[in-house]
Amino acid sequence: MNRLRFAPIPAGLPATVPFTGPETLERRRGAPFRARLGANENGFGPSPKAVEAMARASADVWKYGDPDSHDLREALAAHHVISPANIMLGEGIDGLLGLLVRLVMAPGETVVTSEGAYPTFNYHVAGFDGRLHKVPYRDDAEDLEALIAAGHETGARLIYFANPDNPMGSWLTGERIEAALSHLPDGALLILDEAYAEFAPEAAIPRIDPEDDRVIRFRTFSKAYGMAGARIGYAIGPAELIAGFDRIRNHFGINRTAQIGALAALQDQEWLERTRLKVGKTRDRIAAIAASNGLRALPSATNFVAVDCGQGGDFARRVLAQLAAQGIFARMPGVPPMDRCIRISCGPDHELDAFAEALPVALAGARED
Amino acid sequence: MNRLRFAPIPAGLPATVPFTGPETLERRRGAPFRARLGANENGFGPSPKAVEAMARASADVWKYGDPDSHDLREALAAHHVISPANIMLGEGIDGLLGLLVRLVMAPGETVVTSEGAYPTFNYHVAGFDGRLHKVPYRDDAEDLEALIAAGHETGARLIYFANPDNPMGSWLTGERIEAALSHLPDGALLILDEAYAEFAPEAAIPRIDPEDDRVIRFRTFSKAYGMAGARIGYAIGPAELIAGFDRIRNHFGINRTAQIGALAALQDQEWLERTRLKVGKTRDRIAAIAASNGLRALPSATNFVAVDCGQGGDFARRVLAQLAAQGIFARMPGVPPMDRCIRISCGPDHELDAFAEALPVALAGARED
Repeated sequence: MNRLRFAPIPAGLPATVPFTGPETLERRRGAPFRARLGANENGFGPSPKAVEAMARASADVWKYGDPDSHDLREALAAHHVISPANIMLGEGIDGLLGLLVRLVMAPGETVVTSEGAYPTFNYHVAGFDGRLHKVPYRDDAEDLEALIAAGHETGARLIYFANPDNPMGSWLTGERIEAALSHLPDGALLILDEAYAEFAPEAAIPRIDPEDDRVIRFRTFSKAYGMAGARIGYAIGPAELIAGFDRIRNHFGINRTAQIGALAALQDQEWLERTRLKVGKTRDRIAAIAASNGLRALPSATNFVAVDCGQGGDFARRVLAQLAAQGIFARMPGVPPMDRCIRISCGPDHELDAFAEALPVALAGARED
Repeated sequence: MNRLRFAPIPAGLPATVPFTGPETLERRRGAPFRARLGANENGFGPSPKAVEAMARASADVWKYGDPDSHDLREALAAHHVISPANIMLGEGIDGLLGLLVRLVMAPGETVVTSEGAYPTFNYHVAGFDGRLHKVPYRDDAEDLEALIAAGHETGARLIYFANPDNPMGSWLTGERIEAALSHLPDGALLILDEAYAEFAPEAAIPRIDPEDDRVIRFRTFSKAYGMAGARIGYAIGPAELIAGFDRIRNHFGINRTAQIGALAALQDQEWLERTRLKVGKTRDRIAAIAASNGLRALPSATNFVAVDCGQGGDFARRVLAQLAAQGIFARMPGVPPMDRCIRISCGPDHELDAFAEALPVALAGARED
């Protein structure tokens, strides 16, 4: 008997991982990237008040973080004008998605998502032996009505929907989402991934009672708050569901300093507003760079822009490789027809300068390949 | 149909959590503790070089941490003179224990541990529907031979053994552990939890080839390195087993700043040595405080000391409550006969002063209760 045998579910899982980190790519190419525009990180950085709070808290890292994340949870509750009982903190949305799948989906149950949507969610569904049913995008956006229809057809337990969407940057109106809720199958819970919500127009944010048992929403400090490395995300949902996380989560798993930093970041809404303005300008600049190369940038409600390279996925992949060879880290959608695009995260001017310089060379190279 | 229903395994889990954090206890009592000596945190703190590295890295927290933890893993490999392929980083040993259970234990399989040993491990076993079989301590130590015998009787998949032990601070020799390995059941993997190893005498550390398929060891930056709030633990084991974690873990789950801090802490072995000396002196001081109150401190190879209060669990629980009322946060073993003890973590002099002042009052109060 082999002691190293895996349990049945992990034994059936692939050894691949959803994303290769930029550091690994840098080690492979033997040089650092000039522009880190591939992971939708926020190169404008966190609030200086958050930086200061984290620096000051570093010496106290000998203490475990508060497993209840009390102070941060209270502040988030006040910010969203909801009860702390409707909020669960976790190690990023990624960690919380894994917990949610484990908490509510029995092995073998069906989960609906979009073909080409967030792969880490799919990774968790597979990791707990769910059956993924994928619905195509429509007009470069997740097709909420089709997702719900597929939920009915498949008897889905979970339906994943990101608004705004990653990797395309598209969005539906909050009103449309609110209207769709009444069509959800009885047994299906809607996952509303709002990782990029702070970048979106107000009209993209649905008004949903946190006790509405049809929806669980996810937010994060990784994007607009510029704290991806801190690993602080949170779920908003019915108190009964939120309490369930306590049955299975790693209670002391959230970094103490990160909790303190996130609280300071939340309290600096002025910085958030400045970030929003910078991101808006940078989206315009990416669109202008695309246009000056004869390419079209798709509209975006996020901190990244999908740039249509005008041909199929093979061409876009060549453009991406040519960019990487010039030290520009970017990523792209994984499936047609969205894979005609490359995805460029907003970042500081000097990184965009590097991208602007590299793109025409990359396009020429991709055309020659 | 209730959308909020839980999957079968979580539905059967209790809503209770393994530990209540000291912050929650402080909120309940309405005042901060004077001495934080209950969670085996290391109040002597992390290396100043780690603090400086984390403070300096705070502004870069907009980047995700390296999901491969490459630099830290390489440094740990060099430190232990093993291959990086034998090391997996995670969000503390707690997080890694959960992943290990999920990776190798099928629902319904049996896991052997000691009655009164680390409850968070039991929490994970229950969380993935394992059957816990508990073996009594012998002479205030985990009884490795009895654990292995129980492993044979029950056909156990996993056997948990901590050396040094928490909550008693006892330890077996590395030689005895090495000898026991050959008696392990064919299908059982030994979990060797060495969270406190850096405090223990060298003779307590077994020499085990990391490719030995009978054992997976766990180490942490939470204890001797004074970085509990950072959430960095690691597993050492066969490369095939270590690679398995990639199938199920939250790849971007480790805080970026914490990785940088842990690397700096590892590189400051001089600070670690100073911590060891301070902890040794503090163990002696706790023993002296106990003796001056007519109590006996148990020998400890960790950064905490179990103090035998000389009566049963009810009395020790009263002592603990009396200490808490005076602002001293401590904890105690959960089951007889170890629950005749209270467990005091080593900390700076002013916290020990507070404990020394509070203990006689607590004992008098407990005798009156």
